[in-house]
Formats: sequence, C-alpha cells, structure tokens
Amino acid sequence: MHGNVIVGQSGGPTAVINSSLAGVFRTAIDRGAKKVYGMRNGIQGLLDEKYVDLSNYIKNELDIEILKRTPSAFLGTCRYKLPAIHEDQEIYKRIFEILDKLKIECFIYIGGNDSMDTIKKLSDYAMLTGASQKFVGVPKTIDNDLALTDHTPGYGSAAKYIATSTKEIIRDGNGFSYKKEQVTIIEIMGRNAGWLTGAAALAKGEDCEGVDLIYLPEVPFDIDKFLEKVKHLLAKKSTVFVAISEGIKLKDGTYVSEAGGGSDYVDAFGHKQLTGSATYLANLVAHTIGCKTRAVEFSTLQRSASHLASRTDINEAFMVGGAAVKAADEGDSGMMVVIDRVSNDPYQSATGVYDVHRIANDEKLVPREWINKEGTYVTEDFIDYVSPLIQGDYPCVMVNGLPRHLYLKHDDK
Amino acid sequence: MHGNVIVGQSGGPTAVINSSLAGVFRTAIDRGAKKVYGMRNGIQGLLDEKYVDLSNYIKNELDIEILKRTPSAFLGTCRYKLPAIHEDQEIYKRIFEILDKLKIECFIYIGGNDSMDTIKKLSDYAMLTGASQKFVGVPKTIDNDLALTDHTPGYGSAAKYIATSTKEIIRDGNGFSYKKEQVTIIEIMGRNAGWLTGAAALAKGEDCEGVDLIYLPEVPFDIDKFLEKVKHLLAKKSTVFVAISEGIKLKDGTYVSEAGGGSDYVDAFGHKQLTGSATYLANLVAHTIGCKTRAVEFSTLQRSASHLASRTDINEAFMVGGAAVKAADEGDSGMMVVIDRVSNDPYQSATGVYDVHRIANDEKLVPREWINKEGTYVTEDFIDYVSPLIQGDYPCVMVNGLPRHLYLKHDDK
Repeated sequence: MHGNVIVGQSGGPTAVINSSLAGVFRTAIDRGAKKVYGMRNGIQGLLDEKYVDLSNYIKNELDIEILKRTPSAFLGTCRYKLPAIHEDQEIYKRIFEILDKLKIECFIYIGGNDSMDTIKKLSDYAMLTGASQKFVGVPKTIDNDLALTDHTPGYGSAAKYIATSTKEIIRDGNGFSYKKEQVTIIEIMGRNAGWLTGAAALAKGEDCEGVDLIYLPEVPFDIDKFLEKVKHLLAKKSTVFVAISEGIKLKDGTYVSEAGGGSDYVDAFGHKQLTGSATYLANLVAHTIGCKTRAVEFSTLQRSASHLASRTDINEAFMVGGAAVKAADEGDSGMMVVIDRVSNDPYQSATGVYDVHRIANDEKLVPREWINKEGTYVTEDFIDYVSPLIQGDYPCVMVNGLPRHLYLKHDDK
Repeated sequence: MHGNVIVGQSGGPTAVINSSLAGVFRTAIDRGAKKVYGMRNGIQGLLDEKYVDLSNYIKNELDIEILKRTPSAFLGTCRYKLPAIHEDQEIYKRIFEILDKLKIECFIYIGGNDSMDTIKKLSDYAMLTGASQKFVGVPKTIDNDLALTDHTPGYGSAAKYIATSTKEIIRDGNGFSYKKEQVTIIEIMGRNAGWLTGAAALAKGEDCEGVDLIYLPEVPFDIDKFLEKVKHLLAKKSTVFVAISEGIKLKDGTYVSEAGGGSDYVDAFGHKQLTGSATYLANLVAHTIGCKTRAVEFSTLQRSASHLASRTDINEAFMVGGAAVKAADEGDSGMMVVIDRVSNDPYQSATGVYDVHRIANDEKLVPREWINKEGTYVTEDFIDYVSPLIQGDYPCVMVNGLPRHLYLKHDDK
C-alpha cells in the first residue's frame, strides 16, 4: 500500500465494534499504510473534516488490546444516510475532495445495513467518476440481520450478555417463587429480526430451567393466546419467564409497544424507536391474571457490555477489520467482508467478500423453521447456530476495580 | 460443636449471598457439625418443614467454589415478618419444635434489616423460654443500609456492576454525541439510602467523563432546579448523564416515581415498590427542554450479576458466613456479624459481632456531609469509602460460554 487508509464507524455501536477498528489499524500498518485516519462520527463528521490520525491514540500493543475491549464507537458514530447520487452530487464531490486531500487509498466503513448503503453509494460514485479509492465495508450489528454473512460481529457478545443476564434473572426470580406467582417479561432488542431474543434460549441448561416462552418479531403476536399460555404455565409452576423482542407485532402489523403507547421517536432512517412492550404486557398479565409481574429491559447494556464479550466475537471482529483492509488493498471496492462458517462442530470460520449491492438494505430474518410451530420458542437448529458464537471470554483489563477503555474525548460544544 | 446447624436466606438476594452460605457450610463442617440443614425459602419454608441436607448439594470443593459464584438465594428466599412474640406464641412454638426435632444448635440467618428482626425475635423467645439454640445473623443487602457494620456483603458487587454498566452506558451515549443532544437518566435501586446510586460516581476516571449529576434519596429532590441544571449542562456539552435513586422524593415527601404514576405494589413489610422515576424525568426533560432522552433501569441485574462480582465482596461474604457459625458455636445469640474496616489504604477488614437489638429495623443512610452542598453529587469521602469494596474479580466458572451456577430445583406447584 502506498497511500493512506481512512476508517469510520456508523450506526448503533456494539461491544466489539472497536475490535474491528483495531483490526483495520493493525492490518493497515502491517501493509504499509503511511497514515490511518479515523473519521469522527462516521461520514457525518468527515463532511465537516473531522478526523484524527489514529497513531496518536493507538500507540502500542497494549492500546490495541484495550481498544478491542472498549465498547461503543471509539471514533464516535452517526446515523447519516447519503442522498442518492443523482439527488445531490455536491455532497459526493465534497467527500472525494477530502479523500483526495488526505491521499486516501482505502476507505473502510464499519457498520450495519444502513452503513453498507454508504459503501455502495461511494463506490458507485467512484466508478462513475473514475476515482481510484477503494471502498470496503466491515459488518457490525448486534441485530445479526445482515444478509450473506453467516453472522455479524457484535451479535455473539450481545447474545452472551442476553443469555447470561437472563440466567441471572431466572435465578433471582426463582429465589422468590415460594407461595408466590410471578411472571417476568424480558424485553430484548430487535426491530424486525429475532436473533437477539432467540439467544435467551441459551440460558436453559443443566443448571437453569431457562425461559418458558420466546416471542420473535418474525411471527405475529397473539395477545389472547399469549395470556392463555401464561395461565396454563402458572397452573404448573409459580414463576414464568418470557423473552420478547421489542419489535413483536400483532397480526395487523401494529407493534405491541404501540398498543402500549410507546414513544414516537423516529430516527434518520425512518425507524420508529420502540420501548415498553414488556411493561405493557406485564401490566396486562397483572390485570388479567392477577399475579405479580416484572418487566425487565436490557436496553443499551446489551450492545455495550464489553465486560461480557465473547472471545469468538472479539476475534472475528478483529479478523473482519483486517480482511477489509486486505481486500481494499488488493483492489476490491463496493464490497463487504463476510464471515463464512466453515464448520459448526468444531466451530471454524473464515472471511469472504461479497458485492455490497447484494447486501445493502436487505434484512436477514430468523428462518421460520428455526421457530417452533406455535411461535413460542426457537428450535435446536437455532441454538446450534448461536451457541458457538458466545464461546470464550476476553477478560477486561481491570484498573481500580473497573474495566479500562481506550478513550478519545468526544467534542463538547 | 455437637449438634446441627440450620441456615436460611431471606429478603432480596445479592450476587454474593451464596458465598455467605458457602462460608456457613464450610465453617459448620470444619467445627464438627453433624448436619448442615438449609431452610427452603427462609423461615417461611421452615414453618412448612421445608429444608434440605446441604451435603446432598455441596459435595466437594468445586461445588463450594461454584456456590460462591451463584447469584440469588440458592435455598430460595422469603419476605416473611414474624409476629411480635406476645401476638402469636404458637408460631414460635412451632419453629422451636422443628429446631428441636432437627437437633439444631446454631440457627444462622442471612439477610438485611427485616431478617435481623427475625434473629432478634427468635433469640428473645429462646431467652424467654430457656431454649438452648443460638441465633446469629449474617448481614446481606445490596442497599448497604444496615447499621453498625462498616458495609454489607452484596453492596460491593452491586456497586461494581453499577459503576461498570454506567461507564459502558456513558461510552455508548457519547458515541452518538455529534450534533445531537441527549440526556440519559439511569435509575438505580435504593429506597431510602443512596449508597448504590452514589456508586455511579466510580465510573469517572482517566478514561471516562463520568456522570454529571447524582441524586440520592437523602436530599429532597427539586424538579425545577434539576431541569435548570440539565439546561445549564446542555449549553456546554451535548450528552448529559444523570444517576438517580429509585427512592428520590420531593420536599413534601412524595416519591418522584409517584409523581410519574409508579406501581402501587406494597410488599409484606409495607414497602412500596418503586419504578419509573427515570422514565418520568426523561419524559419531563424531553417535553420541557426538547432534546432526546433515554431512561435506563438497572433493575434486577444490579443484585444478581454474579458475573461481575467483586472479589473483596465475595471473600468478605464468605468470611462473615463462617464468623457467624463460629460466634454461635462459641455461645453468642441474638447477634449479627459485622464488618469492621481496619484500614482504608491498604484496605483491610475484620469481623465483629454486635447485639442485633441495636441493628434491627435501623437504616443507615449516606451521611449528609458525603453529599455535596447542592445535593447533586457525592464527595471524595464517599468515593474513598466505596472504592476498596469493588476491587478484584472473581471470574465465573464458564461452561459452554455461560457462567455455571450451583442449582437447587425450586418447587413447582
């Protein structure tokens, strides 16, 4: 490599998104990049010429290790959708002027569906104008809803957090089970895809009863059948645990959270912010069945709990970061790195690259056959799929009793 | 010791309550107890003659180590308040008949304020009737509100969980700070005592800005001043983080959660269940100031996250369990084991025993001088107090990617 590399992070962060950043940095340096720039807050910051020279922050091998364990986007992130090329060429000109000025050869963008849209448009523009920069995407999303890749870095750690916390919540609830009925409803992230919610099934094992019901957004949610199920379970056992996706919808397409009067906030990509499904259902159970209920939302913690990251996930996130630089350096553009599952048992994976036009804006859902007929639990196939992804720990570097993070001061006003 | 030991767990569980149980078991066996019984669901289960022989479950040293890492009450817990002795002697006769039948010499109860009330009444009854059993309490509560002990087992691990998760949430929020204002309000357990909420201050350090405001229940909460503070902060920085106790109250004594229409559930001790203060304040900020807000409740996880337990806490919990058996075996009754802080730097602690009559039903609050004048943060003294308690890790025994727990099946119906 003769020129420079620039890397950005975009969309919702994960526990391992910085492990991909570390992988990009390491491989860029190894392949001879003169400078590795980091966009502050993705393409949005780049448009304001906000970037840093990463070697000012990642100074040694220890910094790389701490960066791998730092949650959320080290560089800051954004939710910024580029206009279609024909709608606003000025913004593209501006971006390419900045890239030329910085002598960028490889542009790496770590993100999910919306971020791959950015890679697609920038590489299309480069092709149209004959610009020499290569654009490669690094997959990232706790939601695991990116097409073509077996799974997405960030998903395994979120699944490990969900399974561990669910197990701890089940223990807590069962400790109080004597002569008391209680229904616990755990709300887990996932707007349209139930990958994260399905991971609650991992709590079940030799030392844990697991959750009783799992509802994914892939199957329409029937409130009456749900109440019947809970009543039926309470006839046999005093504590019932239900995992639901924030995105579960009624047959008519209404979100359960809307039935409960959720928030109206809509993000830049037109996604409605969902909260409150668990609270709504917990209140409903309390009023209909008359037992004590509890609603738990994992909220932000499921995407930022690096202290419980999966070693498999951290290593794969690092690997795809490096593979993206390699691909761009070898001339690929408009591509995203994917993870291929070479073998499930023993688990082995490798990277590949796919045309981002086949990926962008396409959501991968949980296959219907990985959900039981009634839509109340996931199958063994689902569990076999996710289980390898939560394996192994990556202990934090603890300083004064708390995990140490690599720190880049975010802009104050 | 010539007779048997019985041990129970009561009240809200903690991440390390089973480390105390392990300490009781180990010391009882070491001191020659013939049997170590465990009450199922505390005194409530004992009244129904529900108990187990613990040696059927703790079979070797590995079981002890796993038990120390198992959250929530292994034996099950209860919220059961004994009547005053003069109100209902029958219930006391019934308990002592069971203890006689089981040849109990030492009765150990692991719990908080309400549980120490049980130790007090049972030892009073024994004294009144000349019964020979000794009754000793083992302190336990994440709330840290027990009098006379420097701190309470369970607090250090909850504080470590709160500090770590707060740090991760701050990173997550700051990743999105570009050209966006956001106020995050984190709701932390603590009805009257702000010990847990104050631990959010630990997030601040070389690699983290920390939270901006901390509101404890010890100081009346002023909604107008709070909104002013937030506005003032937003003029300087784009992300504001606020930690509040679930129990913050207005000047007139109304809970902020009541102003927000919280739940009406009241437990057996007459404590009102509080939820929703953060959601209420987040909505208020959104409507008054017009920025994006986020409410996070740590909920059950702060008391059950053994995966993030403090080594200091686990070791002390084990130590007080053993010290309780020793005290009872040496003839103490109507006592609670306490932790004395021998030295703060280097941190050293030792156990003592205090008369439970001086402890029961007495709540230890955060001293006013450990909260700043405005009531918006804790002082260095507070931080020096809590910091040693979160030190050290106690890594889980991971099996198939998840923490292993010692498991006792809870009664189904």
